[in-house]
Amino acid sequence: MDSESVSKFPVGKLAILLAVLQDHEWRRTVERGLIAEGYRFTIGRVGAMDMMKVIAAIETAAKNNRIIDSESYREVHAVYHAIIEALQGVGRGEVQFGNILRTVGLTFSIVRGKFSGGPVEHEGDWIAVAIYGTIGAPKKGFEHETIGFGFNHI
Amino acid sequence: MDSESVSKFPVGKLAILLAVLQDHEWRRTVERGLIAEGYRFTIGRVGAMDMMKVIAAIETAAKNNRIIDSESYREVHAVYHAIIEALQGVGRGEVQFGNILRTVGLTFSIVRGKFSGGPVEHEGDWIAVAIYGTIGAPKKGFEHETIGFGFNHI
Amino acid sequence: MDSESVSKFPVGKLAILLAVLQDHEWRRTVERGLIAEGYRFTIGRVGAMDMMKVIAAIETAAKNNRIIDSESYREVHAVYHAIIEALQGVGRGEVQFGNILRTVGLTFSIVRGKFSGGPVEHEGDWIAVAIYGTIGAPKKGFEHETIGFGFNHI
Amino acid sequence: MDSESVSKFPVGKLAILLAVLQDHEWRRTVERGLIAEGYRFTIGRVGAMDMMKVIAAIETAAKNNRIIDSESYREVHAVYHAIIEALQGVGRGEVQFGNILRTVGLTFSIVRGKFSGGPVEHEGDWIAVAIYGTIGAPKKGFEHETIGFGFNHI
Amino acid sequence: MDSESVSKFPVGKLAILLAVLQDHEWRRTVERGLIAEGYRFTIGRVGAMDMMKVIAAIETAAKNNRIIDSESYREVHAVYHAIIEALQGVGRGEVQFGNILRTVGLTFSIVRGKFSGGPVEHEGDWIAVAIYGTIGAPKKGFEHETIGFGFNHI
Amino acid sequence: MDSESVSKFPVGKLAILLAVLQDHEWRRTVERGLIAEGYRFTIGRVGAMDMMKVIAAIETAAKNNRIIDSESYREVHAVYHAIIEALQGVGRGEVQFGNILRTVGLTFSIVRGKFSGGPVEHEGDWIAVAIYGTIGAPKKGFEHETIGFGFNHI
Repeated sequence: MDSESVSKFPVGKLAILLAVLQDHEWRRTVERGLIAEGYRFTIGRVGAMDMMKVIAAIETAAKNNRIIDSESYREVHAVYHAIIEALQGVGRGEVQFGNILRTVGLTFSIVRGKFSGGPVEHEGDWIAVAIYGTIGAPKKGFEHETIGFGFNHI
Repeated sequence: MDSESVSKFPVGKLAILLAVLQDHEWRRTVERGLIAEGYRFTIGRVGAMDMMKVIAAIETAAKNNRIIDSESYREVHAVYHAIIEALQGVGRGEVQFGNILRTVGLTFSIVRGKFSGGPVEHEGDWIAVAIYGTIGAPKKGFEHETIGFGFNHI
Repeated sequence: MDSESVSKFPVGKLAILLAVLQDHEWRRTVERGLIAEGYRFTIGRVGAMDMMKVIAAIETAAKNNRIIDSESYREVHAVYHAIIEALQGVGRGEVQFGNILRTVGLTFSIVRGKFSGGPVEHEGDWIAVAIYGTIGAPKKGFEHETIGFGFNHI
Repeated sequence: MDSESVSKFPVGKLAILLAVLQDHEWRRTVERGLIAEGYRFTIGRVGAMDMMKVIAAIETAAKNNRIIDSESYREVHAVYHAIIEALQGVGRGEVQFGNILRTVGLTFSIVRGKFSGGPVEHEGDWIAVAIYGTIGAPKKGFEHETIGFGFNHI
Repeated sequence: MDSESVSKFPVGKLAILLAVLQDHEWRRTVERGLIAEGYRFTIGRVGAMDMMKVIAAIETAAKNNRIIDSESYREVHAVYHAIIEALQGVGRGEVQFGNILRTVGLTFSIVRGKFSGGPVEHEGDWIAVAIYGTIGAPKKGFEHETIGFGFNHI
Repeated sequence: MDSESVSKFPVGKLAILLAVLQDHEWRRTVERGLIAEGYRFTIGRVGAMDMMKVIAAIETAAKNNRIIDSESYREVHAVYHAIIEALQGVGRGEVQFGNILRTVGLTFSIVRGKFSGGPVEHEGDWIAVAIYGTIGAPKKGFEHETIGFGFNHI
């Protein structure tokens, strides 16, 4: 399938699909759509009981893959708040993992670029962070799926 | 594309795709996968500033479409908590909409059926609620995407 | 049973039992214990979907039954924070009822007096607010028990 | 006193009394009532600054005393959420202990069995977790009482 | 006093002083400092039990006084999140006023301009929202002071 | 400038100015005002990623500077809750620092004394805790200002 059908998706939907589809073949279509529309993006994985490690992994991926300029506090500030928002969805009510005896195995996507609200295109770049994976007890199989999404102007 | 490639997806991923894909053709594949694997599911839409209306719309859809037995408190209790979890992702930190001057336009999916964690299939039914849409100011276009997901045994 | 066995209970335990026991005969023993030890206390009931009404009912009971001096902001401030703490237990994570489609039927107790921590008696008066009852859907029987407890110096 | 007067108590009230009464003679009456009505239950104690240890102690007690089947994720999931709900009452607003310089000394009860809402008996088993004890500064006597209660279908 | 001594203050300190000083003569010094350094700013007042009115009053002041461009979602998004952050300080734990029987009388400041972190000046504009006033019971004098501060890139 | 103009400020405003003004000359005026009106107060600094250290530093300053009696649980309880309230403003939504990869550099003030609400002077002593400083990434300059304020009867 060509990427046209997805390239009209809003940026958040593309970020969510990127994180959720993982190795499914549709992901290629989503990636082609992102490239066609000029977005910068990356995907990564992190597993931890330690919230700090999860945040650091996503921030580092954003910097190392040039989604954001690591020397710009403006951009670091924008992506940090998008990550925290996404983790509020992942944690549902408590932004804590190991402290409350939960461990996570997560795939995350970071997408940066234009953003259209309804018929209008909003000026400047925006950043979307989607996080999908499992959360649960530190015992194989005793975990279930979770998702979170954060969005910010950058 | 046939539905085989998605029918091995875990239940949460199917619920998320159902809510996110909306009218895209991939949704048919997801629906065929859900049917092939014996899941019960429904999709609905709700727009409101009032959190109470959003919860009621999702609960009513679950009952009217026979995803849950409306006479069983056990099932109503399970779906209520899954909805609240999903709304914690949608609201990111505050489970409030109109009170803090936000309005939402949401598509939700409810999926009920078996659940496998890793290689094991867990006994009994489980319920997934995915909510995708926009949240923002009560002004056209001044809103951005959001997602939430709740999951429970039923 | 004479009240001696309970009169050595700490003030919070007495407040909890007062709210939980409702019409059971043990409540008389608890009340005699409270009187013997010189506590001021009251019990009340409130049913509502509206958090504001629940807070007002408890505050009013504290004032009308002379547990606190309604002209002293110091005392009103102390009891307000004890009520909010108790409602955090009742609501478990969200201090909201009707907004998230829940209704409550609550029995509350307010106890004021001395307070011993371990072997030491702490100076001055303290106030305990215990709230016990049901929380759930606005449908008869579709609700379950809940409890909350707040404590403050006064 | 015979146990008849308490055996009609709802399951949550029994769980709360079990945790609160500790070594008082009324506890025997409550236990006889629980046994007469066919509930499975256990009581335990845990003292810690570390939230993770408190959760682990309660989960382990539920498994070791056969209140839940430790091989069933369904049951582990149910009890985990009941524990977190109870800890929201204990912590009142913050599900944190040591991180915010608080330590706890807690008695907990776990009760599993039937559940009646009003005149109706709801199908299947339900689980109640009650936690009672002290919370405060890490200094003897500089602490006060607290309670929390969580409830779930299982 | 001339404004030089304050014009080196960081933007947040200036915003906080603007809201806190109200009619004190030091406020003129702060305003001259803000003008000398090229900041855009405004001050307003709002009293309400309704959180929605407080947010709307601050947003409207930002728009009407040209602190932000009301046609730019980017700028509206930035100021909205700064307001919510400031209200988290005002409400301390609950972003609710009337729902939990509290009323507020607030003075707010909004300051937009450059921002230096340590020795470096960060690129672009930033926005600070400071809110100072009273919170309490809906009874004259039964209230105490509160402050909140939000900050964002714009 | 003589201190008369500020000595009529309410206690919270004085505490906020004390923490915010740091080494600016206005601080002397504020301190003279506090002394003239008979308040007890202290100022301190703490930098940490660890919330526990921040709380301990403020509590210890209150005790060592005789703002509170360290042997009175009543007073320790009052100041603890004022600190937590202030930290809710500092953290805006999450009472966590290092866990979510944030570090803080804070100046705090603690003021104890009389308190007037409107035209009335409320009986007894009250305590105000103001915390001002920076919060951000553990990288020099990648941080911004924050403030929090807690208030309690003592």
